[in-house]
Amino acid sequence: MNAPDPIPNQPTINPRPVPAGMIDALRERFGERLSLARAVREQHGRGESVYEAVPPEAVIFCESTDDVAAVVRLADQHAVPVIPFGIGSSLEGHLLAVQGGVSVDLSRMNRVVVTHAEDLTATIEAGVTREQLNREIRDTGLFFPIDPGANATIGGMAATRASGTNAVRYGTMKENVLGLTVVTASGEVVRTGTRAKKSSAGYDLTRLFVGSEGTLGVITEITLRLYPLPEAVSAAICFFPSIDAAVQTTITIIQMGVPIARCELLDANAIRAVNLHSKLSLREAPMLLMEFHGSEAGVAEQAAVVQAIAKEHDGADFEWARTPEERTRLWTARHQAYFAALQTRPGCRCQSTDTCVPISRLAESINESVAEAEASGIPYWIVGHVGDGNFHLSYLMDPDDEVERAKVEELNVKMVRRALRLSGTCSGEHGIGLHKMPYLVDEAGPGAIALMRSVKLALDPKNIMNPGKIFAL
Amino acid sequence: MNAPDPIPNQPTINPRPVPAGMIDALRERFGERLSLARAVREQHGRGESVYEAVPPEAVIFCESTDDVAAVVRLADQHAVPVIPFGIGSSLEGHLLAVQGGVSVDLSRMNRVVVTHAEDLTATIEAGVTREQLNREIRDTGLFFPIDPGANATIGGMAATRASGTNAVRYGTMKENVLGLTVVTASGEVVRTGTRAKKSSAGYDLTRLFVGSEGTLGVITEITLRLYPLPEAVSAAICFFPSIDAAVQTTITIIQMGVPIARCELLDANAIRAVNLHSKLSLREAPMLLMEFHGSEAGVAEQAAVVQAIAKEHDGADFEWARTPEERTRLWTARHQAYFAALQTRPGCRCQSTDTCVPISRLAESINESVAEAEASGIPYWIVGHVGDGNFHLSYLMDPDDEVERAKVEELNVKMVRRALRLSGTCSGEHGIGLHKMPYLVDEAGPGAIALMRSVKLALDPKNIMNPGKIFAL
Repeated sequence: MNAPDPIPNQPTINPRPVPAGMIDALRERFGERLSLARAVREQHGRGESVYEAVPPEAVIFCESTDDVAAVVRLADQHAVPVIPFGIGSSLEGHLLAVQGGVSVDLSRMNRVVVTHAEDLTATIEAGVTREQLNREIRDTGLFFPIDPGANATIGGMAATRASGTNAVRYGTMKENVLGLTVVTASGEVVRTGTRAKKSSAGYDLTRLFVGSEGTLGVITEITLRLYPLPEAVSAAICFFPSIDAAVQTTITIIQMGVPIARCELLDANAIRAVNLHSKLSLREAPMLLMEFHGSEAGVAEQAAVVQAIAKEHDGADFEWARTPEERTRLWTARHQAYFAALQTRPGCRCQSTDTCVPISRLAESINESVAEAEASGIPYWIVGHVGDGNFHLSYLMDPDDEVERAKVEELNVKMVRRALRLSGTCSGEHGIGLHKMPYLVDEAGPGAIALMRSVKLALDPKNIMNPGKIFAL
Repeated sequence: MNAPDPIPNQPTINPRPVPAGMIDALRERFGERLSLARAVREQHGRGESVYEAVPPEAVIFCESTDDVAAVVRLADQHAVPVIPFGIGSSLEGHLLAVQGGVSVDLSRMNRVVVTHAEDLTATIEAGVTREQLNREIRDTGLFFPIDPGANATIGGMAATRASGTNAVRYGTMKENVLGLTVVTASGEVVRTGTRAKKSSAGYDLTRLFVGSEGTLGVITEITLRLYPLPEAVSAAICFFPSIDAAVQTTITIIQMGVPIARCELLDANAIRAVNLHSKLSLREAPMLLMEFHGSEAGVAEQAAVVQAIAKEHDGADFEWARTPEERTRLWTARHQAYFAALQTRPGCRCQSTDTCVPISRLAESINESVAEAEASGIPYWIVGHVGDGNFHLSYLMDPDDEVERAKVEELNVKMVRRALRLSGTCSGEHGIGLHKMPYLVDEAGPGAIALMRSVKLALDPKNIMNPGKIFAL
């Protein structure tokens, strides 16, 4: 494995200018829905990564698939980059306009187009957020489980193959997208998949676009699998004397096949931040936050098995979130960990890691990473979807301190190399974006990268779809 | 929707000759493992479809990924088609050498390379069959659930995105393949995926090859997800006054979210055949054959819910398969339904349909198809993975009766059109092969077909990988 080059503080920027003729054509069609304002462009050129914004030349607020197709047809004509934008929660630099171009804002495409409760499916526009979707379908008795923490758009979640807290039981976006409407690089509208639960009909274009990070086309509509709300839901927390004990508990839960719905690790640093931010008084020790879904009896049975496993690893007694309100309070705190952590070091930026390894290697993967983080002296915190072997050790770094930035990247590289050595991946759920491009080369190898490149050039010969991301062309 | 052309009895054959120099080179490397014998070639050029064999010019018995790469490099050099062969259980004409070329027999690549029981994964060679895999991993306490009925090779199952009886609970090959070793069209060996349970690292090449039917490369190794053997398993059968009652029961089971592991429909014709073939005395009425996996209490609870639903639809009491032997006897009978049915009409061929629709449309899909089958006067039988909305109405036709063949194809076309109208797919699990090429055009539309074509040409510019299948180039 070659050493990835250290990531520069800012990526190389080679903008392709947007011709005045294209701006004129956009203005004619979109009027006020075309924005050239600096603040708007900056907001669309960043995301939640450590990078400074690299703004696009223009932002177009699209309201339909036809709008998107119109923008892409112009972009194709003028060979101008197109960067899809949902809500801006990208963590890996997906939104930076490193080759210039225009941002296609999909946030106004926020209609739940149709819900087929009787088939456990819904078709939605790409700008619908996961919280909105679950709010709008609440009275069907169904829910959409994928929950990456952030209130991301479903389009963004599809584009990055997102997952999160419920994936251990319900899978990721890969398993839960049945079909897509996509605007291709030539501005054509193509539908993939059907509403049938499974299909062997031709190449799996749906899975090709899921996780392609806007580099093959713009996802404008998504047909999703929904699930009946479980008859019973219970959540519990359990504290451990060490991170290792919490992780060993998780490993055993998974190896025994307990159908746990959520199994989240928070380290003492994360809890400290969460206590401050959400006015909680959780014990500041490694904690598992768990949720069980099923029948009343099934949930009780799962919880009893897990409690016995936890006890073997010196876990404390479960503390139950008995009411839906208590449960919501715990999960809200968990979801605010990111912002809570940011507040513990004023002016800092958060550099999140995202490795994922086979479950038996999780202890090694976390323990060594923690030792390195402790030795670094840089503030850090951990949350993790540990049931899937995926965790985020995040550094809180001073963005103006070049030495610290370099050190954090070096620590990140070490973690990635360890994950790859343990048969894992550099990205469990955040995607590659700009930040992980060298890691992907190490993980996939030149042969697989060459295949990806061939697919990209076949579907986007002018390299206008979010260019410069995932791999170099 | 345009009317697909009726399928000709035999496809058009345009063989590209295999140059003598390539045969010499193959003989030099493979010696006795190269076969030019007519019987061997015929067996490799058919499968279980209704087509007559179209034999390849040569068959090479490969024993390693390097062997496969050596064949493909020669094929690339001479622009000769390569058709991967597992065990010959294809139902849609995947194996016919319609453009000539050589068959790469992978059946000797039947090693379980490594089992990581602690991670619930195994890596196997493509020629391992599902029964062999489950035999070899039995003492790990794990199993591989995907069960298409036939004792297919895992390589073939990956190539056709197979599923079968357990898919309603465990998903299809799409959900259960973590990574692949693939020989690309230029003869390079590429690995996709990792052993991590999830990943957002770049394009999902794994899912691109799963279901590509040998047209993008040869799958030589597969890393799979395994599952802990459930603590309790119970199977039951239940008879219904009509197919509709059995189907309505299934729809309710799925809509209520019961985690049933298997939910198979057999019609009276299928049971009649199975009774004769397997010396059983099942009632000759529409039947659901169900299996429940979980804890003792969980299994009992699921069964009670399902029993109540069945009763509402006039289902008879459950008859339980109480011992593992009884259970095996029932499932063996189910799996032999295909051969059992063939024996009920001497000299016949079986034309299986394979539509899959959203669960709420299943009754309409089955009932109308049954009415058409009854009206046709052609013997037929039904089995179905109805929990997924997928069923196989299979016609037993006289292969020498042109009129009957044409009629069966017309009935098949009607079923496919109905499935598409009901938001379903022309192929739940058998793939497209030769037989369903016109149906795929109707299902996917010209835009999606154009994308598939671009991907194919990018990855296989000389069109040597199982050419002439899935879509026309």
